[in-house]
Amino acid sequence: MSGSADIGVTGLAVMGSNLARNFARHGFTVALHNRTKAKTDALMEAHGEEGVFVPTGTAEEFVAALERPRRLVIMVKAGEPTDAVIAEFAPLLEAGDVIIDGGNAHFEDTRRREKELREQGIHFVGTGISGGEEGALNGPSIMPGGSAESYESLGPLLEQIAAKAKDGTPCTTHIGPDGAGHFVKMVHNGIEYADMQLIAEAYHLLRSVAGYEPRQIAETFRTWNTGRLDSYLIEITAEVLAHTDAATGRPFVDVVADEAEQKGTGRWTVQTALDLGVPVSGIAEAVFARSLSGHADLRAASRDLPGPTGSALGEKEAAAFADQVEQALYASKIVSYTQGFHQIQAGSDEYGWDIDLGKVAAIWRGGCIIRAAFLDRITDAYDGRPDLPSLLSDERFAEEIGAAQDDWRAVITAAVADGVPVPGFSAALAYYDALRAERLPAALTQGQRDFFGAHTYRRTDRDGAFHTLWGGERNEVPAG
Amino acid sequence: MSGSADIGVTGLAVMGSNLARNFARHGFTVALHNRTKAKTDALMEAHGEEGVFVPTGTAEEFVAALERPRRLVIMVKAGEPTDAVIAEFAPLLEAGDVIIDGGNAHFEDTRRREKELREQGIHFVGTGISGGEEGALNGPSIMPGGSAESYESLGPLLEQIAAKAKDGTPCTTHIGPDGAGHFVKMVHNGIEYADMQLIAEAYHLLRSVAGYEPRQIAETFRTWNTGRLDSYLIEITAEVLAHTDAATGRPFVDVVADEAEQKGTGRWTVQTALDLGVPVSGIAEAVFARSLSGHADLRAASRDLPGPTGSALGEKEAAAFADQVEQALYASKIVSYTQGFHQIQAGSDEYGWDIDLGKVAAIWRGGCIIRAAFLDRITDAYDGRPDLPSLLSDERFAEEIGAAQDDWRAVITAAVADGVPVPGFSAALAYYDALRAERLPAALTQGQRDFFGAHTYRRTDRDGAFHTLWGGERNEVPAG
Repeated sequence: MSGSADIGVTGLAVMGSNLARNFARHGFTVALHNRTKAKTDALMEAHGEEGVFVPTGTAEEFVAALERPRRLVIMVKAGEPTDAVIAEFAPLLEAGDVIIDGGNAHFEDTRRREKELREQGIHFVGTGISGGEEGALNGPSIMPGGSAESYESLGPLLEQIAAKAKDGTPCTTHIGPDGAGHFVKMVHNGIEYADMQLIAEAYHLLRSVAGYEPRQIAETFRTWNTGRLDSYLIEITAEVLAHTDAATGRPFVDVVADEAEQKGTGRWTVQTALDLGVPVSGIAEAVFARSLSGHADLRAASRDLPGPTGSALGEKEAAAFADQVEQALYASKIVSYTQGFHQIQAGSDEYGWDIDLGKVAAIWRGGCIIRAAFLDRITDAYDGRPDLPSLLSDERFAEEIGAAQDDWRAVITAAVADGVPVPGFSAALAYYDALRAERLPAALTQGQRDFFGAHTYRRTDRDGAFHTLWGGERNEVPAG
Repeated sequence: MSGSADIGVTGLAVMGSNLARNFARHGFTVALHNRTKAKTDALMEAHGEEGVFVPTGTAEEFVAALERPRRLVIMVKAGEPTDAVIAEFAPLLEAGDVIIDGGNAHFEDTRRREKELREQGIHFVGTGISGGEEGALNGPSIMPGGSAESYESLGPLLEQIAAKAKDGTPCTTHIGPDGAGHFVKMVHNGIEYADMQLIAEAYHLLRSVAGYEPRQIAETFRTWNTGRLDSYLIEITAEVLAHTDAATGRPFVDVVADEAEQKGTGRWTVQTALDLGVPVSGIAEAVFARSLSGHADLRAASRDLPGPTGSALGEKEAAAFADQVEQALYASKIVSYTQGFHQIQAGSDEYGWDIDLGKVAAIWRGGCIIRAAFLDRITDAYDGRPDLPSLLSDERFAEEIGAAQDDWRAVITAAVADGVPVPGFSAALAYYDALRAERLPAALTQGQRDFFGAHTYRRTDRDGAFHTLWGGERNEVPAG
């Protein structure tokens, strides 16, 4: 039996409801389902006239309402709830049907689910959706994984509801097989953490070193937003900083508790990068900065630790310093994206996903939290040279970071002198300086490992692994 | 049936053989077993006269050779080989017997195994053993987890074979239930990564900024080793740096390939810390520095990136700079241990292990890779105040780091100016400055999260969670 709905959405909390409305507003017939019927009814009552909806009660009714091959979007919590919904619906589906998981699943779970359902002939598409509630309704960035065949059926719908970049291109593409979509969404969120941390450091510096008030800093960010840093996050930073708390008349940012929370995708990004052997120090520092901020007990016990007493700059120096901070922020941002794209490349290699990095940057240009003019540059870099070893190898980025580096170094020096923590800026610069180093002290580290653990080493002048008999005459022997 | 051996060792590769010999040299009767009998025979032939061994062939013979309650040490590869050996021996054992896993197991595996064997009445002791081959033979640092009852039976033997601290105390203690021993060993290794990275950065600075040759740097480390940095790792650093490559006549450190390898416990430490919400930026940067060093392709593609051209210091300035590097190294080391001990505390809280942090520091004073005079200070700190919120809250450490901070900042400034990567030093300072900050820019981060994701925020002036209606008049409403 087969119905008329182009697509179905089960799980009608805010994200699910908004996604369903987005489909309906684009002319698709949307079947609705929720564990409790009340949410379905509420959605119909509030927005039923926005398009053609088919509200259903039972799982069987929901499935029966869908045109074949069925396209069924699951919008429930990641983890066990997702498994439970899949277990409920899979037996009702047929070969060729497509289940789309739009939650924030871990890509390993998506790989497992895709494999299990593939054995039943069902396509499973784990898809990243970025842009929050507002994006789900008006156009998110959509990162679907799964089989190429599933994208043939699903892609045309997603391209309709996705955000459009300034050039009109829909912000969605087939990322790659099985877990590729959720992997890319995870790294997107990791980069988002890094972006936010770098912005926080820039704000802290302008506040502490330049001596600016939040309103002035909002103006500074507004100016930056007209240049190469033009992005959603810079834009909303200005909004948040310009906001005055009505209850106290003080700057909003000063009445908010300085403890940043997190939900997990940043942590997953770093944990996965560690498994892949990819240094993502900028993302790691961003995750750590949030967890540190929440350790109120440790912080309270540490407030008396000695530090420098910085003095605010004069007006002219402050303005010059703000320009330097823009350079430092931009250079650090290039490093964050270099690390994030390295991780996507490594994941793609590890799992055989064949991800097009330029396209990933392209579909992040609209809808998602890290949307930015900057991403056009990344697309250009990979389009110009698909085998680019790293974003830092792109001529234009290399040139820009080269031009920024004196200011970048000056800003970190000022932060260090004034006792302002800049873990993100520092980690980014250390990465840059390590990557370009002719020789790294890793040679000493490996020598130590050979000394205490006979872990052997390689030589610069010939092939093979070697071990020095440190306990004896210190002769060198070929290893194993 | 029951034999006369005090303890048995199965898995007679170097670590297992050396541990068996260590037991025998201390007067214990040691049953020997290996998957292939050849290794048992080889051990008997080479070292059979060092004590009383009972070589056995089959698993049944091995178990029969042990006095009851049996104590059986497994020294095989972590992961599946360990599970296989447990599956082989568990059915042959009786309630009250003790299986000791001396490999580098992940503590979660140890928790699982302990639980499974406990149901059979068998004690499972996952134990960290640090000190490499040499330590296994002559006295390692031993970190046993498992039940308190198992330590009553096993502890007296371990205390005999463990390294002794300078005051004669054996470097072993009952760490805590189930996975506590392997957890503490994991963090030990994470701290070891951080220590080695900090040493590598100090070396790099002395080489690049001070313009010292490896032999001079070896001398510098030798001097440091007579002071508060007195430790095994500083000692062997001097040895490695003083070594000349026989084949080329060049400093050994210059002919070793500058790619540091890793086996996994550093990575586990960071991954676990992320789950526990503990910032361990120093350990993370150390792990990342090793993986970065191994990306030969990326590095080759990045060598032309622009950087400053540092000029070496004069002799006098170089000596003064070296003193500053010692301060920076020591301050950063305090931060590494602060982070590592925070992680152990957090693990202990999470899993209900009730770990005595002062005792952990005490048993690391001998036998293991990070053994150091410094650890006495940590024991003193926790003995003086068992509820110390953080090592940085200890008066003496706070005083020392306060005294070091000007030099610490000067060294990072010099590194930043000269383009020498110091991810470890920088991460440590950023942690220090963040922890003591009156206000962190995390307030801005949380404000952004509320703006784009309605994640809510808390206020500094009253309880509860709040949300600002950013899309409208920007009124504040109580959340959920």
